[in-house]
Amino acid sequence: MGSETVRIRSLGSAEFDSPLGKREDTLFVTPDDDISIRRRRGEMGEGTPPEFFEAAGPRRKIYFSPENLRCGILTCGGLCPGLNDIIREIVFKLYHGYGVSEIDGFRFGYRGLALADEIPPLELTPDLVDSIHRDGGTILSSSRGPQDIDRMIDTLIERRVGVLFAVGGDGTIRGAHSIAERVRERNLDISVTAVPKTIDNDIAFVSRSFGFETAVQAASDIIDSAHTEARGYFNGIGLVKLMGRHSGYIASAASLANRNVNYCLIPELPFRLEGKGGLLEVLEERLALKEHAVIAVAEGAGQDLLNKDRSSAEKDASGNLRLGDIGKHLKSEIERYLGSRSVPVNIKYFEPSYIIRSVPANASDSIYCVKLAQNTVHAALSGRTDMLVSLWNSDYVHIPLSMAVSETKCVDIRSRLWRTVMEATRQPYSLFKDPGGGS
Amino acid sequence: MGSETVRIRSLGSAEFDSPLGKREDTLFVTPDDDISIRRRRGEMGEGTPPEFFEAAGPRRKIYFSPENLRCGILTCGGLCPGLNDIIREIVFKLYHGYGVSEIDGFRFGYRGLALADEIPPLELTPDLVDSIHRDGGTILSSSRGPQDIDRMIDTLIERRVGVLFAVGGDGTIRGAHSIAERVRERNLDISVTAVPKTIDNDIAFVSRSFGFETAVQAASDIIDSAHTEARGYFNGIGLVKLMGRHSGYIASAASLANRNVNYCLIPELPFRLEGKGGLLEVLEERLALKEHAVIAVAEGAGQDLLNKDRSSAEKDASGNLRLGDIGKHLKSEIERYLGSRSVPVNIKYFEPSYIIRSVPANASDSIYCVKLAQNTVHAALSGRTDMLVSLWNSDYVHIPLSMAVSETKCVDIRSRLWRTVMEATRQPYSLFKDPGGGS
Amino acid sequence: MGSETVRIRSLGSAEFDSPLGKREDTLFVTPDDDISIRRRRGEMGEGTPPEFFEAAGPRRKIYFSPENLRCGILTCGGLCPGLNDIIREIVFKLYHGYGVSEIDGFRFGYRGLALADEIPPLELTPDLVDSIHRDGGTILSSSRGPQDIDRMIDTLIERRVGVLFAVGGDGTIRGAHSIAERVRERNLDISVTAVPKTIDNDIAFVSRSFGFETAVQAASDIIDSAHTEARGYFNGIGLVKLMGRHSGYIASAASLANRNVNYCLIPELPFRLEGKGGLLEVLEERLALKEHAVIAVAEGAGQDLLNKDRSSAEKDASGNLRLGDIGKHLKSEIERYLGSRSVPVNIKYFEPSYIIRSVPANASDSIYCVKLAQNTVHAALSGRTDMLVSLWNSDYVHIPLSMAVSETKCVDIRSRLWRTVMEATRQPYSLFKDPGGGS
Amino acid sequence: MGSETVRIRSLGSAEFDSPLGKREDTLFVTPDDDISIRRRRGEMGEGTPPEFFEAAGPRRKIYFSPENLRCGILTCGGLCPGLNDIIREIVFKLYHGYGVSEIDGFRFGYRGLALADEIPPLELTPDLVDSIHRDGGTILSSSRGPQDIDRMIDTLIERRVGVLFAVGGDGTIRGAHSIAERVRERNLDISVTAVPKTIDNDIAFVSRSFGFETAVQAASDIIDSAHTEARGYFNGIGLVKLMGRHSGYIASAASLANRNVNYCLIPELPFRLEGKGGLLEVLEERLALKEHAVIAVAEGAGQDLLNKDRSSAEKDASGNLRLGDIGKHLKSEIERYLGSRSVPVNIKYFEPSYIIRSVPANASDSIYCVKLAQNTVHAALSGRTDMLVSLWNSDYVHIPLSMAVSETKCVDIRSRLWRTVMEATRQPYSLFKDPGGGS
Repeated sequence: MGSETVRIRSLGSAEFDSPLGKREDTLFVTPDDDISIRRRRGEMGEGTPPEFFEAAGPRRKIYFSPENLRCGILTCGGLCPGLNDIIREIVFKLYHGYGVSEIDGFRFGYRGLALADEIPPLELTPDLVDSIHRDGGTILSSSRGPQDIDRMIDTLIERRVGVLFAVGGDGTIRGAHSIAERVRERNLDISVTAVPKTIDNDIAFVSRSFGFETAVQAASDIIDSAHTEARGYFNGIGLVKLMGRHSGYIASAASLANRNVNYCLIPELPFRLEGKGGLLEVLEERLALKEHAVIAVAEGAGQDLLNKDRSSAEKDASGNLRLGDIGKHLKSEIERYLGSRSVPVNIKYFEPSYIIRSVPANASDSIYCVKLAQNTVHAALSGRTDMLVSLWNSDYVHIPLSMAVSETKCVDIRSRLWRTVMEATRQPYSLFKDPGGGS
Repeated sequence: MGSETVRIRSLGSAEFDSPLGKREDTLFVTPDDDISIRRRRGEMGEGTPPEFFEAAGPRRKIYFSPENLRCGILTCGGLCPGLNDIIREIVFKLYHGYGVSEIDGFRFGYRGLALADEIPPLELTPDLVDSIHRDGGTILSSSRGPQDIDRMIDTLIERRVGVLFAVGGDGTIRGAHSIAERVRERNLDISVTAVPKTIDNDIAFVSRSFGFETAVQAASDIIDSAHTEARGYFNGIGLVKLMGRHSGYIASAASLANRNVNYCLIPELPFRLEGKGGLLEVLEERLALKEHAVIAVAEGAGQDLLNKDRSSAEKDASGNLRLGDIGKHLKSEIERYLGSRSVPVNIKYFEPSYIIRSVPANASDSIYCVKLAQNTVHAALSGRTDMLVSLWNSDYVHIPLSMAVSETKCVDIRSRLWRTVMEATRQPYSLFKDPGGGS
Repeated sequence: MGSETVRIRSLGSAEFDSPLGKREDTLFVTPDDDISIRRRRGEMGEGTPPEFFEAAGPRRKIYFSPENLRCGILTCGGLCPGLNDIIREIVFKLYHGYGVSEIDGFRFGYRGLALADEIPPLELTPDLVDSIHRDGGTILSSSRGPQDIDRMIDTLIERRVGVLFAVGGDGTIRGAHSIAERVRERNLDISVTAVPKTIDNDIAFVSRSFGFETAVQAASDIIDSAHTEARGYFNGIGLVKLMGRHSGYIASAASLANRNVNYCLIPELPFRLEGKGGLLEVLEERLALKEHAVIAVAEGAGQDLLNKDRSSAEKDASGNLRLGDIGKHLKSEIERYLGSRSVPVNIKYFEPSYIIRSVPANASDSIYCVKLAQNTVHAALSGRTDMLVSLWNSDYVHIPLSMAVSETKCVDIRSRLWRTVMEATRQPYSLFKDPGGGS
Repeated sequence: MGSETVRIRSLGSAEFDSPLGKREDTLFVTPDDDISIRRRRGEMGEGTPPEFFEAAGPRRKIYFSPENLRCGILTCGGLCPGLNDIIREIVFKLYHGYGVSEIDGFRFGYRGLALADEIPPLELTPDLVDSIHRDGGTILSSSRGPQDIDRMIDTLIERRVGVLFAVGGDGTIRGAHSIAERVRERNLDISVTAVPKTIDNDIAFVSRSFGFETAVQAASDIIDSAHTEARGYFNGIGLVKLMGRHSGYIASAASLANRNVNYCLIPELPFRLEGKGGLLEVLEERLALKEHAVIAVAEGAGQDLLNKDRSSAEKDASGNLRLGDIGKHLKSEIERYLGSRSVPVNIKYFEPSYIIRSVPANASDSIYCVKLAQNTVHAALSGRTDMLVSLWNSDYVHIPLSMAVSETKCVDIRSRLWRTVMEATRQPYSLFKDPGGGS
């Protein structure tokens, strides 16, 4: 039956009794706890054998002996609410749960792991991390971009680190996968796990990423400001550029939560500026009627409208294609078009990305971070490697790193979510080049 | 195969084409979308046939003809973040989605439905409800306690109301079920659906109730105050009584989110005040060491410690047993005990229930309310009755009213949730009469 | 001319050059900076010679030699937003401004000063206090009640403390005055200054106390909750008991800021419950009309309505007369009266005192605390003693401790402030026994 | 003696008894209530006769007969917290206090007054404005720039408006002054008063402008975000551009309130980028030491560093010189310089102006708006014109419009305020071209 469960790599046989002890007896996870990947009747027909993800949670037997174990943690990429919650709980669970007392906090992400001589790691203790979750950001600081794999592994060997927790997004997960692969080639006894972080909520097989709900709340607050500014002037337009390189989840969810957004533009759905039913014409009509408008645009939307040459070659430090600035493009196009139509306009442009990224996690995200961090510690101590813990629908499961980066999760424009956004904004389908779902 | 799906009662055959139109084609729900009740491998073995809940969502055919339909909404019981979001979205979906333009807002819950002559309903329109979600509470006001079933039905008949939405908890759902049963007996053509509301998160077969996350955030903020007051004085104790008649979800989640709680006491787990390892002794030891403490106690906790006679007979307007006041009891017992031990103490008592109940929904709860409300409208218009829409794990499904009130959902003290609370608080197992999970 | 300036006691002649240095030249305070006590034309007539308060600020010459000076800080009485801001800035100014590096933080107020052997003081450094202002409460903790004066002075002598800063209210200022007097009798070289703290805003010759604006904001937020709860039920009444033993400033200001208060009851103005135009009758009329009401009552209001015997003898640890509980009395009287009139009522009672006291200072109060603390350090280092720094209208001045406790500042019921509260609430003058300002 | 009081122009003799009635007897303002302009001893010497501002407040006799009076309100310029509070209280005081029931709300500032045919005014009633103060912005909307004076006056005549309230800044006050002057030339019976609005706090003879404290709180919150982002990366710099065209009050106050600002740059004090002790060098040194920095720069700072040609001619709609963008200039100069020194840097740029402007007023500003609005209504009804009400230190007084725009209020770099900012930031005096106060 094991072949139906998505396989997670392990360093070897778990021989030690878990120090979590007798009281956890009823809670130790067994293969019976594996979680069905599918849950719709139509997917569970007679021909298709059930498939499962391995359930996350504590195991009766663990691979590492905690008293001799040193662990390492690092955070990469853009800030996201909850990073400090994750760090804190990994430390707490290692220390209080398993009795691991040596925990390196590598500063500035992979950079600090590669350059541990120059940048000495922080020694993480429960006392040090006790109230860090009340602040946004990460006490370990972050960085973008790859580092030399072998050099990072050499640091792990030199410092006798047996378990590495890498908190980060797409690029970080790829990096962790490369480290795990190379660890195997070099035949080393090191577990490498990731904690998936993406404020965009776009990691495959991760139903919801930590910090996302907090970010949506913060984005909704900014949209309130944009709405107030828009109504403050004749033909006022509040234009808000939100996060979302490939996926419009934040823009969509904030539009649903706030309900003052009139146009929600996302990367998944190319839109038209010019022509009949295009944004410019539609906007002009709305202003004539209502004298104000609010636009939420994801940073990755409308890239096809921008000068291709400019963005063709450039990549940022994380290796992502540098996006053209759709927010400023919209601003200047709207001003140009309405100017040519002698329609006065007052555009207030908001670029709140850093403000949103830097808030502390709300209660719901904090609790989520606790569970993610605990389950990741359980997995790593059990000897699992090259994997991450994911919330799959409503269960915590194990996912191979390679699977998590095999695709990017996007807003399905044929989904109920997107239809609800269309209803909430009442934007016309004519805005979009391929509106989806027939006409 | 239909027999394996939990059955939802219907008024009759749905004959009208849904006005949601062609664009929704791919989104109309079919039996293939039904959701497996189970998802653990151990529950899905060969012997056990799969069981499903009917998926929520729009149907291609509907039962009521929207242009002739009048709907009614009412809200019952204690305030809860999100009530106005639910009202607003039901009105929006009825009006903009289905074209229903006559919507009665019965004021003061079932009372306004029974006494519609004295208390004329509000006429609910999209304009009227447009920004009500920014305020806490309910524009329809609420009430507790049952009303005469036939009198309420007579109001529905007189006003030609075809669909009733009753937003409320346990008692409200029982009331709706009684109305639906009596409607059937009287052979009437009225759909009665409920939207489950419980700030305690204790309704069976509802994974998470709306407003719960907002309430946990608000409770966590109050615990911060209690922690500040506790540290402000020698042997300061911050004692916070939280909601939770039968279920300790709010106290548990707030303790996890806040992490400054030292003792979390819930109804599910009777605790000991006196004797070795009891709360009083343990508290004395902590004060000697740390000079302050924070206690979160659910209102339903420790009822066995209170004078039985007093609470034996009394019931409140909703028919619930009137609880003894465990908060004040704890305060006086702690003062008595420590006084007898000549230990000075400074207890600051917090009873924030109304403050928590009256905040507006946060972004995450707002979005959840949108989805709950929309799916309830879809269900009612399709002719379903005597049911509610529930979030089952991560899917919206239909649940018969009788099933939702068949039991009360409680914190499982052998669950990972409770273990994590035990870890987060580091309270000893000795506090509890039957700590669960062996010793 | 000196006789016209309110005299501040000094330990002796200031002989040392201020280390604030040459750059401050233009800022050093001289007698020319003294501030006129009066500013109305009618008070400044020909017969009345001008009177001045000594201006606060840095002096060119100081009394203490900073390198040999040890200072002490303590906080007393109830929590108040800004305590940590005050502590922080005293430490910063002493350390960075004057070069004082030995600063004792006595814990638990005067108790820690009297019992310094048992309760060792915290060593306060800029690093330690760097971010304490982001939390409410006080890192030094507090206590109530007097301690033995000589024992406290002995501690100061033993620890070679030359300057004591006592942050607290009425009782604390009296205590500081007693210490200063006894220091003089014992012919010691110790400066004793107070920082006036009263969330009630009731200290004489202090125009506005720190934390007051933050408290009003917090009180206004609670009134929003009360308003939401009141509107949530038929004949709902939101009853909020606010701080204010002798002075109704918080209740008055919160009623002005919030504007949902219908009845604002303060200690300065005895009100009538019974009879024509009394609160009970007026409330019944309002419910008949509006179906809800919000009442803000200061804790010291209506004491004449409570059983005299009960409150006659009892005093709290601070030596204040223990007040009767007007909040609960109102609740039961309203329930009794309306019950006797067969008027249903739903009272939601709020007692948010600790929640309000424990919030961190807002930006405006933070800045105010910075200025208060700096000026108090300047005064103490200059050798002044038995005094405090006050905001007099818009200037920082020196006030003798005895003057600050010579009377209690109250809301003048013939003032524009109170008239504005009457207008904002539209409560009738008939409520009050002596409404002021004629009829 | 009258010559010593700053003269306020009046339309004529006040003949009507104030409808505020007998109860206000003790509160009616008389010349005895006039407020001394000076309060420092050094300014009040024997040679200098005392000078007074006329006290604001209700007069026993008023000029207009309320029952026949129509009033108009308009809001101009950028948004500012408290605009809706001002509108609301003017309406309340006119309606409930004086019995004026016809109130025109001209939309889009002076534009709506000039074009009242095209843009019909809102009819303002107590019901309409009852809860507008809970939202930021202005329900009347705003605009920038002057309009034809006679055309605006013609509107007032046509609509029989006797009193105009113009809420706005510098340009608006100049406009109101021009209208008042022209009204006199045309011998009309119209009172024109202004309510001074400037989020920059830079209007002469106005000690503190409404919305300023709220703005400082909002700015401080943004600085927290910048600090979190700065610490999030290696050599992270949080660069925040704040409001302040000519005056650095917001940047200064936010730096004091927040205390995480390392460099505070204001218009009043030209700073050096290049060379020894200039910003770039100083920043490089700090990064070497601390690895992060936070800069708060007022939008009007450093204009001498920007290309003069570009800004020489351009003016915005309000007639203000268009400022060069010092924020972006700093960003690129820092990147250029540190790049040339091979120092990696991570600049996060914040431009939160619209976010700050659009928040609702906090409790303290709300109360302030109530008092400003009430006193302005009292003044206008008494027949005063061409004036505004100002908070002078701690008293409300009357100021002629011409006096309020005679100069711009600036941060005095030799003041204690600025010294405290220098201390709080610990930025070196070497940054500044003329640091003030000697060297």
